[in-house]
Amino acid sequence: MKALVYHGPGQRSWEDKPEPTVQDPGDAVVRVDAVTICGTDLHILRGDVPAVEPGRILGHEAVGTVQETGPSVTTLRPGDRVLVSCISACGRCRYCREGSYGQCIGGGGWILGHRVDGVQAEYARVPFADTSTYPLPDNVTDEAALMLADILPTSYEVGVLNGRVTPGDTVVVVGAGPIGLAAIMTAKLYSPSRVVAVDLAPARLEAAKRFGADLTLDGRGDVVGAIQDLTEGLGADVAMEAVGVPETFELCTRLVRPGGRVANIGVHGKPAPLHLEDLWIRDVTITTGLVDTYSTPTLLRMLAAGQLDTTRFVTHRFGLGEMQEAYEVFTRSGESGALKVVLFRVL
Amino acid sequence: MKALVYHGPGQRSWEDKPEPTVQDPGDAVVRVDAVTICGTDLHILRGDVPAVEPGRILGHEAVGTVQETGPSVTTLRPGDRVLVSCISACGRCRYCREGSYGQCIGGGGWILGHRVDGVQAEYARVPFADTSTYPLPDNVTDEAALMLADILPTSYEVGVLNGRVTPGDTVVVVGAGPIGLAAIMTAKLYSPSRVVAVDLAPARLEAAKRFGADLTLDGRGDVVGAIQDLTEGLGADVAMEAVGVPETFELCTRLVRPGGRVANIGVHGKPAPLHLEDLWIRDVTITTGLVDTYSTPTLLRMLAAGQLDTTRFVTHRFGLGEMQEAYEVFTRSGESGALKVVLFRVL
Repeated sequence: MKALVYHGPGQRSWEDKPEPTVQDPGDAVVRVDAVTICGTDLHILRGDVPAVEPGRILGHEAVGTVQETGPSVTTLRPGDRVLVSCISACGRCRYCREGSYGQCIGGGGWILGHRVDGVQAEYARVPFADTSTYPLPDNVTDEAALMLADILPTSYEVGVLNGRVTPGDTVVVVGAGPIGLAAIMTAKLYSPSRVVAVDLAPARLEAAKRFGADLTLDGRGDVVGAIQDLTEGLGADVAMEAVGVPETFELCTRLVRPGGRVANIGVHGKPAPLHLEDLWIRDVTITTGLVDTYSTPTLLRMLAAGQLDTTRFVTHRFGLGEMQEAYEVFTRSGESGALKVVLFRVL
Repeated sequence: MKALVYHGPGQRSWEDKPEPTVQDPGDAVVRVDAVTICGTDLHILRGDVPAVEPGRILGHEAVGTVQETGPSVTTLRPGDRVLVSCISACGRCRYCREGSYGQCIGGGGWILGHRVDGVQAEYARVPFADTSTYPLPDNVTDEAALMLADILPTSYEVGVLNGRVTPGDTVVVVGAGPIGLAAIMTAKLYSPSRVVAVDLAPARLEAAKRFGADLTLDGRGDVVGAIQDLTEGLGADVAMEAVGVPETFELCTRLVRPGGRVANIGVHGKPAPLHLEDLWIRDVTITTGLVDTYSTPTLLRMLAAGQLDTTRFVTHRFGLGEMQEAYEVFTRSGESGALKVVLFRVL
C-alpha cells in the first residue's frame, strides 16, 4: 500500500509500505476512506516532535471501514464505518477510567502517527479499537465526521470546556486557524455575549466572522485596549490561546479579567513568561490540555442531528494519491487559504 | 492614639496619629483588641508594594470592639466584638455579588493597610463595616479568631479550594511558613492520602509535621524525584506554592501529575517561566488568587465547634505598645522561630 512516511525533519515521501495486520488482540485494521492533515503534522515535519522516529507513517485523523479485527474486539465488525480518533484509549488505566483518555498510561493517548504508524495511508492498524473508534451514523458523511477526529473535540474540550465558557461571557480566541475557528464555533454553543477573534491574517479574520466571531481584531493593534473598552475596563472572561507561541500566550494572560480563565489549546515548543507579579492577585485560572475525546460521542450526535456544520472547515479536497500536493497546499495555507484539506479514497 | 506608620522602604515608626472617625455612612470605628503582622507587611516595608504611600498605617488583620458606626451600618452596634478581615467588601459591585470580595471594584478588596489606614493601631476605621467584619461567637478567643483575618481563609480558598484537594490526593505544599502551614491544616479537611511539605528550614519542616504533614522534604534535594517515587512516577495531584519566588512556582509545575492542579498562594514580585513546551499536553490547571473571605463564616463556625485549633500558629505574644519589638521578632523569624506574632491591647 501507499503511505505518507516521515524521514526526518523536512523529509516526507508517499511510498510503498507493507499493509498493516492485526498485531494485538484489541487491534483493528481499517481501510482509510478519508483522512486529513493536522498542523501538528507540520510541527513533526519541522522536527519539533522528537518522539516521532524516521520511518513513521504520519496522520491521526481518519474515517475508514473496518477490514479485520483482533480476537478481543467485541464492538466492531468488518464493514463497519468508523471515525478513527487522534486519541487511542486502552480503556483500562487510571486515566482512561477517569475519562482522561488523552493521558492514557496503558499504551494509548496520542499514539497514531506519533509513537505508532498513523492513518495517512491506504490502510491503518488501530490499537485498542473498541475504545478508540466511533461507529458512524448513516446520515453523517465521512467529511463531516472527519472534523471530529481532532479539531472539534480539541477546541471544545481544551478551549471551551476547560475555559468554562458561560452565557454572557466575553470570549477572545487568539489565532483563527482551524483550531481557533472550531473554538469559536463551539464557544457559541454556550451563548457568550460576544466572541472576539484575533489574528494577523485578514483571510483568517474573515473566516472567523463566518464561523461566528462577533468582532475581529488585527493582532498588531492594541488588542488589550480594545478588549478593555468592550468590558468596562475589566477584560475578557475567557481567553483561548490557539497559536502556540509565547507572545500569544502572554497576550491571553493580559486580556483576561480578574477571575477570568485562560485556556491554552496551542501546541508549544518554548516556555512563556508568566507574569505572576500581576497575576498572583487576580484570581486567574490557566488550563492546558491534550484532547481526551470524551466529547466525541456528543459531537457526533450533534452532527447527526444537524446542530453542527463541520464541512465548512474543508477548503480543499484531494484523492488519496495526491497526498504530497495536499501537504503543499496545507503547508502554504497563507497563500492557498487552506483551512482543512481532506483526502478521499474515492474522490 | 499610637499607630505603626510606614514612611517609605525600610522605615516604620510607632507614633501618634489622630484617632479615626466615621467618614462614610458605612464605616465603623473599631478599638483594636488583638492584631498581627503579615508577611505582606514585610513586603511593603521592602518597598515591594508601591501602592502603599508613606504615612500609611499598616495592618490588615485584627479583632476589635466596635466603638461607633456610621448611619447606614445596620448589623453592628457599639460594643460588638468583631473580626476585621483583610478583605473589605462594598457588597454592591459585580464581584461582591458573585462572592469575589477580594476583587471588589466598588472601593473594597484589600484596602486596609494598603490603600487606606490599617489596623496596627489603637483604633481603626473599617469601611463597608456591615460586609467587612464578622461578629465573633463568645466561645472563640480573640487570638483564635485573629488567624481567620487572613491566613486561614487565604490558604483554604486560594490553596485548598482552588487546588480542588480531593480525598486520596497527594498534596505537596512548597513553603512551610504560616500560609503553607495553614494550607497543610486545611488540606487535611479533605482527607488527602498524604500531604508533603517542602521547605529549606528544618524548624519549618518540623512545624509542618505538627500541622499535619505526613512527609517533609528539604527543598535542596531531589524533590521532583521523591514525589515521583511516591506516586508511581506520575506526580502530585495538587502542588501549592506558598513562597512567592519564581523557583518555587517552577518547582510546583514540575511536581504536578498530568491532570493535576497548581494552586499559587504566594505573593510574587517577578515573572516565572511557564514551561508550556512540557505543560501544553499535560492537562494542568494553574490558579492564582487573592483571598475573597467567602469561607470566613464557615471557618468561624468550625472554630466555635472546636474543629480547628488556630492558636497553634501563635508563637509570640506582645502588648500593643511593643509593636516595634514584635516587628523585629517577626522579621527575624529564621532566628526567632516566629510563625504568627500577636499584639494584645490587654496582654
